[in-house]
Amino acid sequence: MKQERSIETRNKLIRAGRVIFLKNGFANATMTQVIKEAGVGYGTAYVYFKNKDDLFYVIIEETILGLQQVGSMQFTPRSKEEAIAIIEKQATLFIEEGLRQKEMLRVVHEAIGCSTIIAKKWQQARHFFESSIARDVRYAQEHNLASRLFDAQDVAKLWFSLNEKALWDCISQDDCDATMSASLISHFYIAGLYA
Amino acid sequence: MKQERSIETRNKLIRAGRVIFLKNGFANATMTQVIKEAGVGYGTAYVYFKNKDDLFYVIIEETILGLQQVGSMQFTPRSKEEAIAIIEKQATLFIEEGLRQKEMLRVVHEAIGCSTIIAKKWQQARHFFESSIARDVRYAQEHNLASRLFDAQDVAKLWFSLNEKALWDCISQDDCDATMSASLISHFYIAGLYA
Repeated sequence: MKQERSIETRNKLIRAGRVIFLKNGFANATMTQVIKEAGVGYGTAYVYFKNKDDLFYVIIEETILGLQQVGSMQFTPRSKEEAIAIIEKQATLFIEEGLRQKEMLRVVHEAIGCSTIIAKKWQQARHFFESSIARDVRYAQEHNLASRLFDAQDVAKLWFSLNEKALWDCISQDDCDATMSASLISHFYIAGLYA
Repeated sequence: MKQERSIETRNKLIRAGRVIFLKNGFANATMTQVIKEAGVGYGTAYVYFKNKDDLFYVIIEETILGLQQVGSMQFTPRSKEEAIAIIEKQATLFIEEGLRQKEMLRVVHEAIGCSTIIAKKWQQARHFFESSIARDVRYAQEHNLASRLFDAQDVAKLWFSLNEKALWDCISQDDCDATMSASLISHFYIAGLYA
């Protein structure tokens, strides 16, 4: 019973946190606002989360996982054309997934700049994406589909940075066309690696 | 005489600010530290600068101008080969100029995330770079050197984002090779636009 209550209190704080962060953004949100919204005891809240950075860290878990799922799409093309088609598709899906979570990602973007903990979490996610891309680049290089001119890890960093840039740009706009954004960055990536 | 003293006080604060920001970074620097370092009156300091964001804004003026000078290099190539050579040269010079100002740019990068005023200043600088690149892209497109497939402004944003990424990466490392970094990003840009 006590454990159930404990889980329920934690969930209340997470739900309340989501409401407050979406309403006030990261910098302007406070634990006091979250606690009031959750209707839990002031001291109790800090048993579960040390501060708002800690709480936000847990809240964005799902958001980041959604993006990472797109990042882990299978990549075993049998031809250059197939490789290009997968790349364009994946870039589009990545931005589309970002748009689906636009409001929360705007807060994530704000928090990356201000919170060391969230910056670190995003850096970990970035490593995940870069490793996944580097694996794909190596696959394409080993199967003689892509140029071996550059190190797979360097290329992966470059390609993810283009995707990340397109993501932040798109979620900050009100009328972003995911396919168009993906098409532009894919063109340069494909021209550089698959020409 | 009074005006001279006033300029001298302002300069003292700027010099002291430079010392403190380089020593403590942006988030950990305080106006109190700067005032102590400058040896001016507490109340006097705030006549010149409202807060540390205001002071930092003035301090990084020069740093940003240094980068912008590289961004305004003349670009009137007569052939595709000449265009490619200028682009590679300019990307290298941009990162080299960044490395020359590495310590201050590390603080700038930190401040962009945390300070609305500094984020806005960097956004203005970014617009400067993007306009300058867009002009170059249009020149190359009009002279049938570059592909007309994409809008010059979109291409400019993409190319500056690669330069900016390479800049932040390079200044955060201790052994960055400007030529190597510039060569990687230039390869993708040139393949996409000049293939």
